[in-house]
Amino acid sequence: MGDPTRVLAILGTGVVPADTPILRGDDLGVVRGDGIFEALHVRDGRAWLLDAHLERMAGSAARMELSLPPREALVELVGQAVAAWPAGAEGALRIVCTRGSEEGGPVSVYASVFAVPEGNLRGRREGVQVRTATLGFPARMRAETPWLLGGAKTLSYAVNMASLRWAKAHGADDVLWVSSDGYALEAPTASLVWREGSVLRTIPADGTGILAGVTAAYLLTHAGELGLRTEEALITPAELAGVDGAWFTSSVRGLAAIRTLDGTPLAYDPDLTDRIRTLLGFPLP
Amino acid sequence: MGDPTRVLAILGTGVVPADTPILRGDDLGVVRGDGIFEALHVRDGRAWLLDAHLERMAGSAARMELSLPPREALVELVGQAVAAWPAGAEGALRIVCTRGSEEGGPVSVYASVFAVPEGNLRGRREGVQVRTATLGFPARMRAETPWLLGGAKTLSYAVNMASLRWAKAHGADDVLWVSSDGYALEAPTASLVWREGSVLRTIPADGTGILAGVTAAYLLTHAGELGLRTEEALITPAELAGVDGAWFTSSVRGLAAIRTLDGTPLAYDPDLTDRIRTLLGFPLP
Repeated sequence: MGDPTRVLAILGTGVVPADTPILRGDDLGVVRGDGIFEALHVRDGRAWLLDAHLERMAGSAARMELSLPPREALVELVGQAVAAWPAGAEGALRIVCTRGSEEGGPVSVYASVFAVPEGNLRGRREGVQVRTATLGFPARMRAETPWLLGGAKTLSYAVNMASLRWAKAHGADDVLWVSSDGYALEAPTASLVWREGSVLRTIPADGTGILAGVTAAYLLTHAGELGLRTEEALITPAELAGVDGAWFTSSVRGLAAIRTLDGTPLAYDPDLTDRIRTLLGFPLP
Repeated sequence: MGDPTRVLAILGTGVVPADTPILRGDDLGVVRGDGIFEALHVRDGRAWLLDAHLERMAGSAARMELSLPPREALVELVGQAVAAWPAGAEGALRIVCTRGSEEGGPVSVYASVFAVPEGNLRGRREGVQVRTATLGFPARMRAETPWLLGGAKTLSYAVNMASLRWAKAHGADDVLWVSSDGYALEAPTASLVWREGSVLRTIPADGTGILAGVTAAYLLTHAGELGLRTEEALITPAELAGVDGAWFTSSVRGLAAIRTLDGTPLAYDPDLTDRIRTLLGFPLP
């Protein structure tokens, strides 16, 4: 048997073959997209930034009123999944917690590790062509509408996936979601960061309802090592066209330079892109 | 063995025990809420309005670029599930089609029948207390933003479920979603209909991005039998306070009179409510 291409570990059970059917047809995770998840980068035999991801997952669970198992149980689950993955290989880890069967009973919790998708590796290497698409509501609205689940990383990603399909059908690789009042928000599976002079900026999660990016937070915390100061700010797509560089950060792709926005080339700094990628520890494929 | 409380049938396999795990952990239906569904009422040993629901499901599949199996295969699947349900009992039927495993391969398709939830029976009997909640975008916006999946009945219902939890936490039974420009849209799992004089009205699905209600369409098509004309129109919550009666229609609860809206009692006509319920063929629990 060669190395596995996908590892699956179930809470309380441990590693099982990845193609094992594990969810009932009435699991609320599938019939209602009712659950939460985290995606992490596996490197050097461990899940990178596990603490920060588990903290964010606990926040998602609170917003969803979901009984996430204790942190120690999740750490053990992740350890089981990662231990079954080839130690030298990078991988993508996903931790899932659904509300469980519609008939009641415990949450469904599992973790899986799989190869970083080829499209992610290409984006990391070459950057991405990006289209803007409205998310429909004002930038500040989700701060006051908890039922819209701003800031929670739920399993209900149909719109995220449809946005990416729409971008690809229009010749792009990714989407920058924009508020109805014209501000850049985030990508369907990534955060926006950009440089203006000596300042590296990102969108504030507080108040905007975007997902607080774990990779973006790590980058901003360590931006001093690149000689950059940091700041949270709002920005419009038109303003992005004039900055000194813009990137999407995410847990698995890591870093992708935004090469064009709605067809307009953005400033591209291959040297800084490489230094950020190295700081974040993502290998160049 | 007594009657089953839940029936599960898998496309190509037929009926299996309802607690059988049937979905992989990487099924896109669960990790991305990436799939579609329909809910129907089972009565007299058959699924009511099956043709209309399958037609809407085909529309959802088209919007999601999803390979829904042919109609005949779905009809056979539904037949298997319904045949295993006690013939005299009413039930709820759900047909699910997910995009299948993240590794590719066929869609996951199954149908299940289960008892009508007690809360639905209570709503049918007593009506519902309703809170309004913004859905965040203007009424006409989703007509031009296909990536927001207006009109598609996807599995990504986390916001729908969170809206209902929010209503219950505020002492209500259900939610009326309102557009950012102030128009009533729909409930998380129901359509809005209301009467003004001799006219029964509902919200137009075309242009608003709401889900076209199958039960509402049946009601409007047959409203002549109640001596009512019909019309599609937009309405505000404030205007709803002055109409001669308002209801939520849906496939499983059937009909629920809106008794209060944000605490304000609405006009309630028990006789007409009973006549509509009888026209729709839902038993009084």
